[in-house]
Amino acid sequence: MPNSKKIKIGIVGATGYTGVELLRLLSAHPYAEVCAVTSRSEAGVKLADYFPSLRGIYDLVFEKPEDAKLEQCDLVFFATPNGIAMKEAPVLLERGVRVVDLSADFRLKDIAVWEKWYGMKHESPDWVSLAVYGLTELNREAVAAARLVANPGCYPTCVLLALLPLLQAGALREGLPLIADCKSGVSGAGRKAAVGTLLCEAGDNFKAYGVSGHRHLPEIRQTISGLQHGVAEGLVFVPHLTPMIRGMHATIYVHLKDGVSPQELLETAYRDSFAVDVMPAGSTPETRSVRGVNVCRIGVQRAPDSDLWILLSVQDNLVKGAAGQAVQNMNVMFGWDENAGLGGAALLP
Amino acid sequence: MPNSKKIKIGIVGATGYTGVELLRLLSAHPYAEVCAVTSRSEAGVKLADYFPSLRGIYDLVFEKPEDAKLEQCDLVFFATPNGIAMKEAPVLLERGVRVVDLSADFRLKDIAVWEKWYGMKHESPDWVSLAVYGLTELNREAVAAARLVANPGCYPTCVLLALLPLLQAGALREGLPLIADCKSGVSGAGRKAAVGTLLCEAGDNFKAYGVSGHRHLPEIRQTISGLQHGVAEGLVFVPHLTPMIRGMHATIYVHLKDGVSPQELLETAYRDSFAVDVMPAGSTPETRSVRGVNVCRIGVQRAPDSDLWILLSVQDNLVKGAAGQAVQNMNVMFGWDENAGLGGAALLP
Amino acid sequence: MPNSKKIKIGIVGATGYTGVELLRLLSAHPYAEVCAVTSRSEAGVKLADYFPSLRGIYDLVFEKPEDAKLEQCDLVFFATPNGIAMKEAPVLLERGVRVVDLSADFRLKDIAVWEKWYGMKHESPDWVSLAVYGLTELNREAVAAARLVANPGCYPTCVLLALLPLLQAGALREGLPLIADCKSGVSGAGRKAAVGTLLCEAGDNFKAYGVSGHRHLPEIRQTISGLQHGVAEGLVFVPHLTPMIRGMHATIYVHLKDGVSPQELLETAYRDSFAVDVMPAGSTPETRSVRGVNVCRIGVQRAPDSDLWILLSVQDNLVKGAAGQAVQNMNVMFGWDENAGLGGAALLP
Amino acid sequence: MPNSKKIKIGIVGATGYTGVELLRLLSAHPYAEVCAVTSRSEAGVKLADYFPSLRGIYDLVFEKPEDAKLEQCDLVFFATPNGIAMKEAPVLLERGVRVVDLSADFRLKDIAVWEKWYGMKHESPDWVSLAVYGLTELNREAVAAARLVANPGCYPTCVLLALLPLLQAGALREGLPLIADCKSGVSGAGRKAAVGTLLCEAGDNFKAYGVSGHRHLPEIRQTISGLQHGVAEGLVFVPHLTPMIRGMHATIYVHLKDGVSPQELLETAYRDSFAVDVMPAGSTPETRSVRGVNVCRIGVQRAPDSDLWILLSVQDNLVKGAAGQAVQNMNVMFGWDENAGLGGAALLP
Repeated sequence: MPNSKKIKIGIVGATGYTGVELLRLLSAHPYAEVCAVTSRSEAGVKLADYFPSLRGIYDLVFEKPEDAKLEQCDLVFFATPNGIAMKEAPVLLERGVRVVDLSADFRLKDIAVWEKWYGMKHESPDWVSLAVYGLTELNREAVAAARLVANPGCYPTCVLLALLPLLQAGALREGLPLIADCKSGVSGAGRKAAVGTLLCEAGDNFKAYGVSGHRHLPEIRQTISGLQHGVAEGLVFVPHLTPMIRGMHATIYVHLKDGVSPQELLETAYRDSFAVDVMPAGSTPETRSVRGVNVCRIGVQRAPDSDLWILLSVQDNLVKGAAGQAVQNMNVMFGWDENAGLGGAALLP
Repeated sequence: MPNSKKIKIGIVGATGYTGVELLRLLSAHPYAEVCAVTSRSEAGVKLADYFPSLRGIYDLVFEKPEDAKLEQCDLVFFATPNGIAMKEAPVLLERGVRVVDLSADFRLKDIAVWEKWYGMKHESPDWVSLAVYGLTELNREAVAAARLVANPGCYPTCVLLALLPLLQAGALREGLPLIADCKSGVSGAGRKAAVGTLLCEAGDNFKAYGVSGHRHLPEIRQTISGLQHGVAEGLVFVPHLTPMIRGMHATIYVHLKDGVSPQELLETAYRDSFAVDVMPAGSTPETRSVRGVNVCRIGVQRAPDSDLWILLSVQDNLVKGAAGQAVQNMNVMFGWDENAGLGGAALLP
Repeated sequence: MPNSKKIKIGIVGATGYTGVELLRLLSAHPYAEVCAVTSRSEAGVKLADYFPSLRGIYDLVFEKPEDAKLEQCDLVFFATPNGIAMKEAPVLLERGVRVVDLSADFRLKDIAVWEKWYGMKHESPDWVSLAVYGLTELNREAVAAARLVANPGCYPTCVLLALLPLLQAGALREGLPLIADCKSGVSGAGRKAAVGTLLCEAGDNFKAYGVSGHRHLPEIRQTISGLQHGVAEGLVFVPHLTPMIRGMHATIYVHLKDGVSPQELLETAYRDSFAVDVMPAGSTPETRSVRGVNVCRIGVQRAPDSDLWILLSVQDNLVKGAAGQAVQNMNVMFGWDENAGLGGAALLP
Repeated sequence: MPNSKKIKIGIVGATGYTGVELLRLLSAHPYAEVCAVTSRSEAGVKLADYFPSLRGIYDLVFEKPEDAKLEQCDLVFFATPNGIAMKEAPVLLERGVRVVDLSADFRLKDIAVWEKWYGMKHESPDWVSLAVYGLTELNREAVAAARLVANPGCYPTCVLLALLPLLQAGALREGLPLIADCKSGVSGAGRKAAVGTLLCEAGDNFKAYGVSGHRHLPEIRQTISGLQHGVAEGLVFVPHLTPMIRGMHATIYVHLKDGVSPQELLETAYRDSFAVDVMPAGSTPETRSVRGVNVCRIGVQRAPDSDLWILLSVQDNLVKGAAGQAVQNMNVMFGWDENAGLGGAALLP
């Protein structure tokens, strides 16, 4: 029986990792209540049978999207593979339902670029221009007014949060490489059956992937371009797969203009941001310090005997890198405390 | 600045895994507030520097126990190695502070047995007889009135919760083996520097340990003895170390009297227990379904072509097996909702 | 260019874990050389491109089975899913090729039992009766003469090696439970894309599975029945999935007749067996002590205050539990040293 | 009973990971036999009791160094913490015993630099100048004639092997950053009891460390300086700890002079090196492809839309990064096949 004071939430595609993480986070939310979860393959199955971790917490049953009365929701999260939301979200949007899309469908403003990287024709380009890119710390005001939020990718969030204050200050030296060497836990690859992410393939193993081109490269570039000229071209982005479940680490090598103090710029920019924690100068953050929480922790170091600066940025790829930021965006959209339902300490060990 | 409506909590020995887990759980508690954390070795260090996962959540600094004004607390948790609480808790108890001891100091009623298994002289045997064994589901009423709660060991909790309703009904066949084959994550061994629990020793490895005698054997026996005659003698307990951080699994093989339905007995006994979840008959619980939450999930199965029953019991060894049950006991001691501050979904994946 | 002094080996289904493990072991074999590897899905792909761990070691290319001239091999290993060898091995056998089948097709002598557990009709029941069950330590002589060896399952090998000497001596008490609580690394589930064995599902998690019935139960029962009367009926077998790549651990609880010394029986039986290591009384073997080697290590302990004995048996499920035993059987079939190509120390850490 | 045709080997400090790895590798060596293993703390303990993985393979007993008659050995490996070999190796060297030191004592030619980074006074600076830096692929001829080999650090090996051919060709652009973003498995930290490398601290976690200065930085610099001018100054080296047991991955970002083909340079340089495998252009090596073997596998990629090149270099930190290279150096010192005892395929999965 929905609590009448809470807004109604629907989750499309709730069988994956971002879906179940949304369900975990929303189970404790003071102002929102999940009223519908959809899955074509699991329609009719009780949510708590599918995810025993949710026994005693949710009474919902998976429904087919068309049966779920999503149009009665106040907000619908799409936790679907790429290519679904662009087809299914517009109908809801047109009926006044607000949407936060955790897939990549509405992230890239340039449709041609999107189509090249995602290998399909975009089916609702008009909504792309209306969508707000939901990197909350960058676009708070636009998010508040948004009907459709394109929730950022995990790598872009981790990399961009460390760079935003520097880019906004025009602090990077133009025309030089900007290297983001990134490492992700395996949950970033999703919950689909695949050989490459089996425990026996990804466990006790480390490798780069997507070196010659990863979909998050144009996404990071797009935001950098909008903030400082002459920097995005130098971006080099190398993702790596790390044998852990959750967690993402970006090691970012930047050339800064003379006299810039990145520590100061970051501290000032994030003074009031509960979701970004700038650690004391010289700190080395570790991914487990944010396991399960909506926080990106950043350390700033100077490379010894060098004029390069090194930014170390960590997040839980499923929280600040996905479902947590989606909830944060929802909070902003509805005018609540930005961290409503997002408090609590990381699970350590 | 302590909230005047909340009771004051002290944690002695807060640098270990049960200590940091208490801090995580209590950070979200509606009625209790941690006012003092002690550590001899880390006195003067900021809690949030020691555990970066607590940055932005606690402003406390580790103090030496003698400086921490613990006597001003309403309740003190001892998260110390064995042998400390028996020395330091009585002074607080005598000044009216209630104590929950997560170590083994007050668990065994028979002092001689305790001294044999723990290899030291007990220094406050009088308090042992006053202590209430804090297996909440067994001793709720006594816990409510207790000044001193001996919080159970992780293995005993996991094994006994599956057996309680059967023992209380006198359902086990006397004189036959009762085998508890148990598997624990490595955090059960604590946070002390040791070769055996290094990632490179305990990782990608599985082994039994303590087969010829483990300290939790007499603890399990003591409770069984108090509930049904002729069963404890048959107890065989074999713990194993599993390459994971959190989680405990007990596979318990029991001979039941004719006509007994363990599924029914368990369901009835735990109908109102939020911390014990009896799954549908034939279920197979997994440890991750309780990662980070104060729940013991139990499955009941019949061994094929056999008259043995198999009870499968899982918990997070640091939560229901330690800090979570300690908070649950505190809730009972102060007359609050038993699950205050303990809700929420498990972290999955 | 095959070495003319070596026998020619073919491997059918070489893309899985037992296949690549056979390739690893055989790469160092003094008397055998792999001449053909088959895979329907990867035909045309270079073996060393598919498994970069084999770069510089093999020059082979995957072929379709029908193109691989397997009939020119001296011995063919089937490392295929169940149901393939029973169709494809007979043609080779009839042309004089000897076969070691690592799947379950020829393990169960009772065709009806096989068909019930494997859910398909058996297509070459005649070969089942000719097949020798390749638990080398039990059937050395029959293996030597065999045309077709049914290589045992991983669990049966681990459990039976600990029991063989006791069963052969008639040392178990009849009519009582014989409990084998077993734990396996995830590679036992094979290399197929599946949600359940993803790193994010099986990692940092522990669970039982197949409690109500696992295919290795009838296989273990069959061998027990052949050795001692009145024991197999009491067998209870519970497998568990452990978050590690390789390794298997059996904890076996046995009731022994008065006066029996299991330590002595095991030591005597395996005095000359290089592949079974009976540790000193009271030892606790760990799985990593056999990582990568064809050894089953066994410890014998008495349960404290009980008349139950506990046998602890560990192996690498892919070596003594699969590919290693297959090579050991080949060595016996060809009259070579039983450990030819199987020496070397475990990979530790 | 030592084989009279084999040379006699001693291992000082054989209780650590490089020690036990030497023992594993040497157990299969055709020309060398371990005759003495020393450990102050474990003197009198049987090697096979200490490392059950060596049961049935070695009959040795740990001895105190002074009792082990190391002077009768042909070659002694020091697998000791830093600061031991500089004290104990000279006595042996003066008696004609050849030494391979796996610690850092003889790696840095500049004594002042060594003393700064290692925080102690060097006790045998004369031997430093006589020592040959044992990066085999760089110094084969000098190694062959060496009395004392300073076996390289794990990071320097992994980074330098990818750079050697470029530096030797003068192919790097001077005055620009040369970034080595490196990731290591936890075994690189050794087998000492320490909180930071517990499974519960290092597991499911990723972090950088030593960003402000790591001892392998001057070691890498020293070799670079000797090969190409104006490059070493730009070196930025950031090591990270990865939750796996073995394996090291270097992601190296290099500015190359116009017209240089790094793929060609590497392929040409390592055409005859069995221990370095240059993969086809565009490849992405993974650490598990070299688990347990003495191979460094290198992939070369061009950063998209950039003039940076990316070198991906993987090795097993305990093999090519330590014990394997030590054996390779021994082979060169005694004029044997460079890969004697070092063949075989990686353990995968």
